[in-house]
Amino acid sequence: MEVYLIRHGIAAEKGTYADDEQRPLIKKGQDKTAQVAQRLLSVGLKFDLLLSSPLVRAYQTAEILQQASLAKTIETFAPLKPDGAIAEWVKWQQQYQVQHPDAKIALVGHQPDLGNWAEMMLWGAIQGQIEVKKAGVMGLKIPPIGTPIARSTLFLHVPPKWLI
Amino acid sequence: MEVYLIRHGIAAEKGTYADDEQRPLIKKGQDKTAQVAQRLLSVGLKFDLLLSSPLVRAYQTAEILQQASLAKTIETFAPLKPDGAIAEWVKWQQQYQVQHPDAKIALVGHQPDLGNWAEMMLWGAIQGQIEVKKAGVMGLKIPPIGTPIARSTLFLHVPPKWLI
Repeated sequence: MEVYLIRHGIAAEKGTYADDEQRPLIKKGQDKTAQVAQRLLSVGLKFDLLLSSPLVRAYQTAEILQQASLAKTIETFAPLKPDGAIAEWVKWQQQYQVQHPDAKIALVGHQPDLGNWAEMMLWGAIQGQIEVKKAGVMGLKIPPIGTPIARSTLFLHVPPKWLI
Repeated sequence: MEVYLIRHGIAAEKGTYADDEQRPLIKKGQDKTAQVAQRLLSVGLKFDLLLSSPLVRAYQTAEILQQASLAKTIETFAPLKPDGAIAEWVKWQQQYQVQHPDAKIALVGHQPDLGNWAEMMLWGAIQGQIEVKKAGVMGLKIPPIGTPIARSTLFLHVPPKWLI
């Protein structure tokens, strides 16, 4: 199974919305995300499923990926919110993998969470050494059986500048 | 300082040369590496220096990067040979950094060494979780003072497929 971790695009500044969860993508964020989506398509990528943080800026990012035909379905996944628990994702993934051993799925979320989740899947500990830009994409291979924690491999980590 | 780790391009098959160090790039490897070099240029990258493994397939890769005007100078650096000691690189880097605090340099070498060196600079331990394809490129930011070991950050890891 391949898992792509995708950070939301450029959103309205922090503090401009009373409820931070409602901050939307700004025009530039929509446009850059759409360009990134086109590049993912042109490399031949398709996702079996998009799991998205329920926050507006993430869900809108997932919608742009969906509109580019990168995936048919978006599901909101609460553990992708800031400070969400990777253990919930691992539980979900272990069940999903049984039915979809060759799936490619994308998780759309936030920093520093996505970098931390990647570190957990690669090394089993968080050291904060992975930078992820807005609309940046990481790709990890997950082992076919057993936990992904400290057992996955990194094959892709690409900022939008390199995709546009 | 930014350090780019670049794996050599596709070379003649293992075992086809009596001396493995003499294996050259094949035509396809030259062509793909040249395409990768053009993409690095188009993103605006320039290296202050290319350090290359002395093995033919690595040095030829460095020459292709140089011919694309990504760098003026190639120096061979013996610790970039397979199983080379990262401690030698750290010693070199600590001295170089004093004179060139904002340098961008590229190390051209082999797998699994480059993935291992990246893991050492990011996490301080080797777990073999970073895949690097031939002509693939990783980018790390090195802290301005002190050892890069377990203190660098990863901002780029991109296979050639995503560059050409």
